[in-house]
Amino acid sequence: MLSASPLPDYLVNRYYGWKATTYAKNESWYQHLAEMGQHPRAMVVSCCDSRVHVSSIFGADQGEFFIHRNVANLVPPYTPDGETHGTSASVEYAVTVLKVAHLIVLGHSNCGGVKGCYDMCSGDAPDLSRSSSFVGRWMELLRSRFDALPEGSEDSRLRELEHQAVLTSLRNLVTFPFVREAMEAGRLTLHGLWNDIGAGSLSCYDPQTREFSPI
Amino acid sequence: MLSASPLPDYLVNRYYGWKATTYAKNESWYQHLAEMGQHPRAMVVSCCDSRVHVSSIFGADQGEFFIHRNVANLVPPYTPDGETHGTSASVEYAVTVLKVAHLIVLGHSNCGGVKGCYDMCSGDAPDLSRSSSFVGRWMELLRSRFDALPEGSEDSRLRELEHQAVLTSLRNLVTFPFVREAMEAGRLTLHGLWNDIGAGSLSCYDPQTREFSPI
Amino acid sequence: MLSASPLPDYLVNRYYGWKATTYAKNESWYQHLAEMGQHPRAMVVSCCDSRVHVSSIFGADQGEFFIHRNVANLVPPYTPDGETHGTSASVEYAVTVLKVAHLIVLGHSNCGGVKGCYDMCSGDAPDLSRSSSFVGRWMELLRSRFDALPEGSEDSRLRELEHQAVLTSLRNLVTFPFVREAMEAGRLTLHGLWNDIGAGSLSCYDPQTREFSPI
Amino acid sequence: MLSASPLPDYLVNRYYGWKATTYAKNESWYQHLAEMGQHPRAMVVSCCDSRVHVSSIFGADQGEFFIHRNVANLVPPYTPDGETHGTSASVEYAVTVLKVAHLIVLGHSNCGGVKGCYDMCSGDAPDLSRSSSFVGRWMELLRSRFDALPEGSEDSRLRELEHQAVLTSLRNLVTFPFVREAMEAGRLTLHGLWNDIGAGSLSCYDPQTREFSPI
Repeated sequence: MLSASPLPDYLVNRYYGWKATTYAKNESWYQHLAEMGQHPRAMVVSCCDSRVHVSSIFGADQGEFFIHRNVANLVPPYTPDGETHGTSASVEYAVTVLKVAHLIVLGHSNCGGVKGCYDMCSGDAPDLSRSSSFVGRWMELLRSRFDALPEGSEDSRLRELEHQAVLTSLRNLVTFPFVREAMEAGRLTLHGLWNDIGAGSLSCYDPQTREFSPI
Repeated sequence: MLSASPLPDYLVNRYYGWKATTYAKNESWYQHLAEMGQHPRAMVVSCCDSRVHVSSIFGADQGEFFIHRNVANLVPPYTPDGETHGTSASVEYAVTVLKVAHLIVLGHSNCGGVKGCYDMCSGDAPDLSRSSSFVGRWMELLRSRFDALPEGSEDSRLRELEHQAVLTSLRNLVTFPFVREAMEAGRLTLHGLWNDIGAGSLSCYDPQTREFSPI
Repeated sequence: MLSASPLPDYLVNRYYGWKATTYAKNESWYQHLAEMGQHPRAMVVSCCDSRVHVSSIFGADQGEFFIHRNVANLVPPYTPDGETHGTSASVEYAVTVLKVAHLIVLGHSNCGGVKGCYDMCSGDAPDLSRSSSFVGRWMELLRSRFDALPEGSEDSRLRELEHQAVLTSLRNLVTFPFVREAMEAGRLTLHGLWNDIGAGSLSCYDPQTREFSPI
Repeated sequence: MLSASPLPDYLVNRYYGWKATTYAKNESWYQHLAEMGQHPRAMVVSCCDSRVHVSSIFGADQGEFFIHRNVANLVPPYTPDGETHGTSASVEYAVTVLKVAHLIVLGHSNCGGVKGCYDMCSGDAPDLSRSSSFVGRWMELLRSRFDALPEGSEDSRLRELEHQAVLTSLRNLVTFPFVREAMEAGRLTLHGLWNDIGAGSLSCYDPQTREFSPI
């Protein structure tokens, strides 16, 4: 028998509260969304981290952002090998079906996935180095960027690696033919952002200066 | 040169608004989260769909839910082949590092990914059948459930397949050794939910009745 | 011999019910809390009054609020005299150990402690005026606010004094060096609330208007 | 100007949810409580710890328990020196005004206050030993019990000290003349409980066996 438990009561109660307030006030919009389908303007790739909340930062309404969240906001390179690639499926759906106008990669400070990569590549996380570690194998996507990190304090190197996670995703995104086509047709732009959780600041990558600058 | 554009003005303006209001009012909490790390109670696996908004439904605060979002809220089976598996990495991080107490799979009505699976398996979506289609290969995870669908109207069969997407994830979750261990130690429970977007209703899977019942 | 009686049966029975239902459903979360420790976002100072229930009003889960409750939700001024100060110990633990982001003082209508202060200061409660009355000495913390009450009906003056109990606590909180330091570092904010029990309404103090306004 | 901030939005939203559901369904009871006053059957002294939730464990309704919460659920001895004693004020109000029938002291596992006492008395917490530490001075109430701890593992000694915190409160309660009088008149009983947070178990002190036994 399939294992599944009832929802904890505090969540049930909060759901009832939502239904009686937010839903009640927006019922026509939810019905509209159900009947007319979604037409988001942008896809956001962000981290699973519970402290990152793109809808809040951008005051986004239901229906605005198509959001994929994974560990460390990584997009792997185009690999059409007939295997299962969840992130690539999300990007393909957003670009070819929904035809979003923007692909936004949102990185953040204090990222546990990036820290794991840092420790693994430094030889300090044998667990992540095992071939059976999904987090380890996933963070391999960033190993070449670790190898290229400049000297510096661990803090500054970690921050740089968080930035590189965003840039790696941007770089990999253009290896997808449908992404490149949409960009060349002027239908799609890419954007690289990094959020400092404590300071609430947001930086945007500028290819001219090759730096993340505060917006 | 890496392709990256400035953020559209309307998002920049909204970010400024958020910084001056929500961030200003919650600065102390964001600093706490940055310094003390995240301690979420639950991981939620939900769809990238822009109309699904788990934080809103459950009145969740920053820091409460570790959220993975992919097409059709699917968790693939345990496959420790040393390859890149983004969803499995998210689950591993939540269960083994954050030690979340609940894994909640949240499906929803009008799911484009499930509709794609339905069309593909019905022979009506040749694009998705191509080996180069990431969405198609991803939705293969659900093909055996399509084959087992009962007779009925397309609407009822689609809804059933949306339910099956949730159950498939629950079934696959227990193939991960670290999920099973945490469950056996009483440290983790699984939960299957389905949200009707237009009606704002929420159903929870009950293994006794083998049905999704409104909560 | 120490005097202690068995728990009344009706409470034993309710505990059994809780164990078989709420605990059973949330076992994984309770184990998580036991192993991972508490990480509450806020400390709440509220009254012992059986009608005040902050967890319910805010849909709070176990683990969310560090709660100190005393008569009339009062925080005394900073008095580092090496004596025993229970309320100050609670505030110190919340701010310096748990590093909560918010200190919420929650007052309420029909407060027996505030009514006792009113009667005592009006000369109508000789019992409370005796030096041996703990309630009387505790409510002395509010006497200067009684002296400053505007003219009006007893009802309006009582309500004003309930508001002043909240403001007195807010005022005293900033006399604690560790509270002030955390506030200056942007790590802590103070909040003053007042709950009308019968009406179920909640007001929040606004320093600009110097009034409690409904939220 | 008094420092006070607006309530974080997520709490405002949850309050709206409570108002529209729990309050709406129980409005007549809340109005009754406001007009008729509180008539709780028991007073509970428990810890501020966010993981302890006596209302939940005993399925308590608004109006049932008069609850005092402080660090480590301690009641100091009777000290009628005309100074400010918050815990004593709570006990006095419950016994002499509300005439509760039961005084329940509820301790718990993983108690940070008790751990602090243990470390301080072991010489491992110089911060708590300073005369300016409110937590340290508060936990002095338990020092004599630390000195009397039997040999054993730290875990077993900590548990014993948590039990002793409950017994110390029971012992101090009978030093209050009004408590003793009510007990002698058969109007009041004392109860000592200890809750294991992870296991969800509850033990009750039995003066015959001098042990906490599971209920």
